[in-house]
Amino acid sequence: MKTYIGIDLGGTNVAAGLVSEKGELLGVHSQPTPRGAEEVADAIAQAARAACAAAGVGAEEPRSVGVASPGSIDPARGVVEHAFNLGLDHVPLMGMVSERLGLPALLENDANAAALGEFVSGAGKGYDSLVAVTLGTGVGSGAVLGGKLFTGFNYAGMEAGHMVIRRGGRPCTCGRRGCWETYASATGLIKSTREAMEAHPDSALWRFAPTLEQVNGKTVFDAAAVFDPPARQVIESYLDDLACGVANLVNILQPQVLCIGGGISRQGEKLLAPIRAYLDKEEFTRDGERRTKICVAQLGNDAGIIGAALVPLYR
Amino acid sequence: MKTYIGIDLGGTNVAAGLVSEKGELLGVHSQPTPRGAEEVADAIAQAARAACAAAGVGAEEPRSVGVASPGSIDPARGVVEHAFNLGLDHVPLMGMVSERLGLPALLENDANAAALGEFVSGAGKGYDSLVAVTLGTGVGSGAVLGGKLFTGFNYAGMEAGHMVIRRGGRPCTCGRRGCWETYASATGLIKSTREAMEAHPDSALWRFAPTLEQVNGKTVFDAAAVFDPPARQVIESYLDDLACGVANLVNILQPQVLCIGGGISRQGEKLLAPIRAYLDKEEFTRDGERRTKICVAQLGNDAGIIGAALVPLYR
Repeated sequence: MKTYIGIDLGGTNVAAGLVSEKGELLGVHSQPTPRGAEEVADAIAQAARAACAAAGVGAEEPRSVGVASPGSIDPARGVVEHAFNLGLDHVPLMGMVSERLGLPALLENDANAAALGEFVSGAGKGYDSLVAVTLGTGVGSGAVLGGKLFTGFNYAGMEAGHMVIRRGGRPCTCGRRGCWETYASATGLIKSTREAMEAHPDSALWRFAPTLEQVNGKTVFDAAAVFDPPARQVIESYLDDLACGVANLVNILQPQVLCIGGGISRQGEKLLAPIRAYLDKEEFTRDGERRTKICVAQLGNDAGIIGAALVPLYR
Repeated sequence: MKTYIGIDLGGTNVAAGLVSEKGELLGVHSQPTPRGAEEVADAIAQAARAACAAAGVGAEEPRSVGVASPGSIDPARGVVEHAFNLGLDHVPLMGMVSERLGLPALLENDANAAALGEFVSGAGKGYDSLVAVTLGTGVGSGAVLGGKLFTGFNYAGMEAGHMVIRRGGRPCTCGRRGCWETYASATGLIKSTREAMEAHPDSALWRFAPTLEQVNGKTVFDAAAVFDPPARQVIESYLDDLACGVANLVNILQPQVLCIGGGISRQGEKLLAPIRAYLDKEEFTRDGERRTKICVAQLGNDAGIIGAALVPLYR
């Protein structure tokens, strides 16, 4: 059996896994992420060896090691250009990892790796194409099209979170205004929740978050469950914006599956049913026989590990 | 030399060409488009034979015939589902064409075929990926990604014109509001021009179009050339909307080339320079070394013929 090491390099943890070519997770290991280039490379190598050991496999046996990284990266050269919360600035991380493990090392964007993991072993298993959207601090996105990981010619695709859906709307970290992620991310939902609380001092939202600092992505759903009108308005508007971007992506990419991950996706059908209803009204191919399946991502944090490991098979 | 017949099935003309595998147009023929299924199939066969004759090649020599069709189509079954201005409703057109010519017949969306033509022989020649946007009655779009014609799993991609950029904006024929094409199409520009004329009875626009019915996609550029303030405002807003959608597509797809065609693209640098300036401010990878090249489509109506012909090589 051919095996591959996958690393999900996060701000908190370095999560490593030994992965079979079919996308099974054979052994895992996680340890805290240090700061600094040499330290991060050391931690990746340690975690990789520990994941192999957990699977009962020698660290020389896997074919390669793939690293899913946040920030701005150059996969062609294996360089992390900027990942400031990891203390990495123009670091040739793949060379450093390869040297430590004696294996070829490949770098991929974390959202792309997560999409590939879901495609191989999760929501997209058995399908031909998938778009994965992750609702977190921003809106991450990745795609597998025609059985291949889609990255654009310069490995910078796809940044669907930075698709403007409301011209002149909320300012975005990218410099544009009205980007999808300013509304559809957990950050966007929290911002809308706080705005509603300030506008409605009598709202039940204050019961679930006594101060604005305590608001999280779940607060508004909790308040809506007790029929708080401001909370329900926030959710309605949030779902419209989320579904608007989903419909845009379906109209452009027509993937067989579009899965939604991140903390907010735990709301399940509360999230999916309104999106499907929106698509039934707005999707260009709403009367067609073959439509995109909308579902929740299945693998959570494992998606990045599995996808990173299998990059060499799907690039 | 392997050759292929390409047909651009338009509302006015059936344009046929014999095309080499390298994308050279060896012979062409155009004749009026009749109404009705049998009549359209006859006209396609006649035009195909005439294009072969013009190239000095027997009609049995090409490997296949590809048809670029407007309206709603099912390429998998070779059926034109709805093309109402051609009088076609659930017509198995490829079977009928194949029978008449004794060749395999393939069906493709007209915007996708145009994108493929530009990729092989026009703006995308020598590149790896291209997005083609056509500004006409609507905003047509097609893509070649990783050297393959991109169509989505159900052949319904890509309809980038039906990407919402202004939530709650202008109503679109597709049922949504604020779609890119309601602002960036020639139709959208004409609508904005008329609105400006009604709001500004003293505008120079009235000199170039004495009645609202006489407004076309060029009117506002003519008036702007004599420094008419309302015309310049219309163009500024138009270019912002056009560039917004282009930036969205670049952020999502990162193609090596994005070309813009249709009548308005004759404005050349008047159109391209402001789009490039917008991308320099708003594109996610604006600081990167490898950025999408923005240019005008090169082949005009030939793009559809060449692309239709070569569909079997790039699907």
